[in-house]
Amino acid sequence: MPAVRLDIEYDGSPFAGWAVQPGVRTVQGELETALATVLREPLRLTAAGRTDAGVHALAQVASFETKEAPPADLARSLNALTPPEITVTAVGLAADGFDARRSARSRTYVYRVFTRRIPSPFQEGRALWWPHRLDRTALDGCAAALLGEHDFTAFTPTQTEHVRFERRIFGAAWTEEGADLLVFRIEADSFMRNMVRAIVGTMLEVAADRRSAASFAQLLAGAPREQGGETAPAHGLYLESVSYP
Amino acid sequence: MPAVRLDIEYDGSPFAGWAVQPGVRTVQGELETALATVLREPLRLTAAGRTDAGVHALAQVASFETKEAPPADLARSLNALTPPEITVTAVGLAADGFDARRSARSRTYVYRVFTRRIPSPFQEGRALWWPHRLDRTALDGCAAALLGEHDFTAFTPTQTEHVRFERRIFGAAWTEEGADLLVFRIEADSFMRNMVRAIVGTMLEVAADRRSAASFAQLLAGAPREQGGETAPAHGLYLESVSYP
Repeated sequence: MPAVRLDIEYDGSPFAGWAVQPGVRTVQGELETALATVLREPLRLTAAGRTDAGVHALAQVASFETKEAPPADLARSLNALTPPEITVTAVGLAADGFDARRSARSRTYVYRVFTRRIPSPFQEGRALWWPHRLDRTALDGCAAALLGEHDFTAFTPTQTEHVRFERRIFGAAWTEEGADLLVFRIEADSFMRNMVRAIVGTMLEVAADRRSAASFAQLLAGAPREQGGETAPAHGLYLESVSYP
Repeated sequence: MPAVRLDIEYDGSPFAGWAVQPGVRTVQGELETALATVLREPLRLTAAGRTDAGVHALAQVASFETKEAPPADLARSLNALTPPEITVTAVGLAADGFDARRSARSRTYVYRVFTRRIPSPFQEGRALWWPHRLDRTALDGCAAALLGEHDFTAFTPTQTEHVRFERRIFGAAWTEEGADLLVFRIEADSFMRNMVRAIVGTMLEVAADRRSAASFAQLLAGAPREQGGETAPAHGLYLESVSYP
């Protein structure tokens, strides 16, 4: 059956994450309600990245199966029905069997760290404010250690639905983006729950000299969760892009 | 008497502007309340730019007279007492007779226009969303016409406290800053109420071909307010910097 693909940008602040949960506002819930109103049938969205509460997306991809082509103005209709924190930037008819989650080849996340000594109102909720010691060489060393396939058990909650803890990292690097803004970008085949945030939290411990770079690399061989570092806050994290074959 | 200088960054969204008014939240009000708590005496702040409701500041400058040097940790104390939308980025002892408003040589404002066809959650409240026709050549022509001294009666409300309507424009230019973001930057000796917003609103009418570039230039010779264009929304405007001799 053909599928409809939605490209979506959202400010995750007011939502309890992507995935529908009873009694709370979620991105999936807002979009499915709007879709049901426009298309007059209930349907289920599948997303490339099931972002956690408070996590943002610059280009999330979601899909649903359909028998007919979507109306030409579907994006506009959805944007009229969803809150300003969610924007559907594109709607298209995808190939038969396209599934935003299963068809994805890789996901890229960015984590933004605002390093100025004094916080900024304009970074509030958009970046982690981190006015602490940050050894850039140590951060770069950690990023380099991440490349390739590793067992990320140390970077996801012990209580888990995951059955396989190996993930392949295609890219991982820290870059400066403007004054006082340090950005970590990571691309992998897929990510487990909290994985990027736990990796970033642990790297920040290395950069503050509270943990050695060598011990960071050792975590990547399937160390237990309690040996990993803290989970960095959600508001610095963005799903930046999803890649398909 | 010596004076204390404060450099301040704020997101203007939740405030009824800089200037204290009874019964509403203002930036000056929040800061004066915090200062009175820390210094244990009531005092009055003077600001370089009395921004309107909803207008932001990247580097507002304010001052107050004092008999003694401020405590070394005054910025930190003020930031602990003010909401996250206001940040004091620097505190310093200024020269005798320094007054943030009267001593200023010029102010620079920027107006941010987000031109993408579809709005973005991350530009919400931070830029004017303007998915309409924008003739860049016309915008550049208007900016060039602004340079020098003109009578800006057409760009400030008729009901006014101003007595002199001439202002000297030191710089005015449109530049692209990243994808889909067009920024107008203007520096003048001083500005009247709503002046930058009325200039931007009128330029957008020229850029949409609803008004000629020649008629824009004619407005600068003291034309009445009703001949000027609409006042652009507050949320795209930022006081960017203040210059002192």
